[in-house]
Amino acid sequence: MATHWEEFYSSHLPPIDFEDNRKLLQEFCERHNENNEKIVLITSGGTTVPLEHNTVRFVDNFSAGTRGAASAEYFLEHGYVTIFMHRLKSLEPFTRHFNGQKFMDMLDLNERGPNTTITVRPDGVDVLAPILSRYKAAQDNGRILYVNFTTVSDYFWLLRAVCECLAQFGARALLYLAAAVSDFYVPANQIPTHKMQSGGGPPNIQLQLVPKLLAPLVSLWVPLAFVVSFKLETDESILISKSRDALNKYKHKLVVGNMLQTRRTKVVFVTPDNNYELILSREQVHNGMEIEEIIVSNVVANHLDYIKIQKY
Amino acid sequence: MATHWEEFYSSHLPPIDFEDNRKLLQEFCERHNENNEKIVLITSGGTTVPLEHNTVRFVDNFSAGTRGAASAEYFLEHGYVTIFMHRLKSLEPFTRHFNGQKFMDMLDLNERGPNTTITVRPDGVDVLAPILSRYKAAQDNGRILYVNFTTVSDYFWLLRAVCECLAQFGARALLYLAAAVSDFYVPANQIPTHKMQSGGGPPNIQLQLVPKLLAPLVSLWVPLAFVVSFKLETDESILISKSRDALNKYKHKLVVGNMLQTRRTKVVFVTPDNNYELILSREQVHNGMEIEEIIVSNVVANHLDYIKIQKY
Repeated sequence: MATHWEEFYSSHLPPIDFEDNRKLLQEFCERHNENNEKIVLITSGGTTVPLEHNTVRFVDNFSAGTRGAASAEYFLEHGYVTIFMHRLKSLEPFTRHFNGQKFMDMLDLNERGPNTTITVRPDGVDVLAPILSRYKAAQDNGRILYVNFTTVSDYFWLLRAVCECLAQFGARALLYLAAAVSDFYVPANQIPTHKMQSGGGPPNIQLQLVPKLLAPLVSLWVPLAFVVSFKLETDESILISKSRDALNKYKHKLVVGNMLQTRRTKVVFVTPDNNYELILSREQVHNGMEIEEIIVSNVVANHLDYIKIQKY
Repeated sequence: MATHWEEFYSSHLPPIDFEDNRKLLQEFCERHNENNEKIVLITSGGTTVPLEHNTVRFVDNFSAGTRGAASAEYFLEHGYVTIFMHRLKSLEPFTRHFNGQKFMDMLDLNERGPNTTITVRPDGVDVLAPILSRYKAAQDNGRILYVNFTTVSDYFWLLRAVCECLAQFGARALLYLAAAVSDFYVPANQIPTHKMQSGGGPPNIQLQLVPKLLAPLVSLWVPLAFVVSFKLETDESILISKSRDALNKYKHKLVVGNMLQTRRTKVVFVTPDNNYELILSREQVHNGMEIEEIIVSNVVANHLDYIKIQKY
């Protein structure tokens, strides 16, 4: 049995930067709702489950955050205002294209004392300019808000706070829940205060099931929003059935199913009515196209249809 | 009982990029040994323990890699050739001072079609120029080699390969083992192939103790090198005793003990003869000084003394 979601909140304190983030979210959402914008919440990256209070060890869910970070760029292109709720240090839109050394290696240093300048090499400009231009447009126009989490408990608190701000958008809100959230956690009262000592032999970690937030999210927090969840499996034979189970259980609009091994080139859209695959062709892969471009186009089309229906 | 280290190697395959890294290491070490350089191996960041073969979930050891990345910069300043063996995506020397958005925000885009240029703003130049200059000096002169690991098994394979290359340096080799290596692992034959399903209830993870590589490293692999290990604790009352236990057990030269809570301002050096604290004063912290500057100076002084003794 999973812990009930209300019990989870009552037994886990909010993260320390919670009130700051809530204010940022409220200001961001109010401003854009007044302008009648469409808004997307993207969750991205994995959550951790601390095994000790002074967190040295934790259980993590693998996710670099590629899908969420890439998708954010495409949603911005489609005119969506974007809340990018990501695991701290996971990939972010725009900057995901460069790691630190790649940045440094693009730079020319012209040392002339107080007149020293640093410029991007011409071949770097070709790559960087279009990305930098889109990054600055999103920043300067305040169309993207970054908030981050680390533990599964941080994620819970932040997600509910975002939903409270998104409710006012009604059907114009799209939730794109791509984060890899832990299914299991160690109850706070069972976590040792100090680092576990290896002298006592290997520890035996007793995990509890994390409550599924999709249930209160769909039925209570943002009942009018268009909610998309993701299902990651490694066993293809259960992918569609598990995706459909989730859709039947939580009554949201779309599950994007994907296999760990092929997730960069293939996904399956499971809707209440049917299911269909989106596949990146070999040629598209070769041309540097990303599957997130296709996923986002299709999600947006579904969302726009949904908004139309809601209006009648 | 921990698994014996030889058994650990025989039951874990080397990482896929292992032979490539070994060649890079051999070339790097031979070149610098011919020039009679002093060399430091820095290990940095945490290791993961996969809980599934198609790794979705893993146990991780918390470590951003700040200590290792900062120390690498100071060792380069002290004239050491540096092997920076770090957890993939953990902090790296030089680039650690900037995250992706900080980089982007320093840049001015001057869009003029084919004559588009990108320059670093003047206030960004002040911060970036000295770091970029040192980065380029290390790169251009081939004085730093980056190799990375993710799992505890990757770390094991890579560390032994590095030691095989370092042995030729004799006492001129310094090992600065700052990585946070997992104490526990899940034996390969007990790892499920597919993602664990939450429907079956929470899993019970049975962990095994990881063998301590310090034992073969000190006694067999690099018997003449100056080996420094790190001990991180959250309980101050056992810090020095556990550090001394490690020194007595493995017979290396120095343990740097530190508390999770105060590790940025205080460490204790535990040597075979005595122990003493290194503390960053409030004024030094205020002036932006890093404790790694002091740690590295002191380690280098100890290493130089050791080299002198070895010569007689």
